[in-house]
Amino acid sequence: MKATVLVRPKGGILDPQGEAVERSLRQLGFAVGDARVGRVIDLEVDAPSAAEARVQVERMCERLLANPLIESYEIELQEQGA
Amino acid sequence: MKATVLVRPKGGILDPQGEAVERSLRQLGFAVGDARVGRVIDLEVDAPSAAEARVQVERMCERLLANPLIESYEIELQEQGA
Repeated sequence: MKATVLVRPKGGILDPQGEAVERSLRQLGFAVGDARVGRVIDLEVDAPSAAEARVQVERMCERLLANPLIESYEIELQEQGA
Repeated sequence: MKATVLVRPKGGILDPQGEAVERSLRQLGFAVGDARVGRVIDLEVDAPSAAEARVQVERMCERLLANPLIESYEIELQEQGA
């Protein structure tokens, strides 16, 4: 089963990468604000059901993919052949 | 208008970060494969219409947010108050 995880800096947390992107875009003449930069992780999960896959990916987020203190995560699952 | 851009390494391109994530997840006991790591960029775009916002964000991708030689990008727009 394919899973996509979006990991983003939480609301109050400083995001220097987002600030740099925003500054650079403005210097190029784009009218943008509130830029935030996070990570997207795509992976193939071996699990018997979507429910079980979600549980597994949540554990991966808590243990490795995200830092729950400063980052939030969002999980999307696509069943294969669906 | 809020825009979300997903930037991912293209298919044939080596992704050392994805390989490291996959290796670490397996060492933790997770049954995963094909891990790929990219970036997610959220930003607020000042544009009169969704069509114009999309054109702007495509230009941002080509000029700064992605490296079109080795990365693909996907743009999602959410109109405010919709």
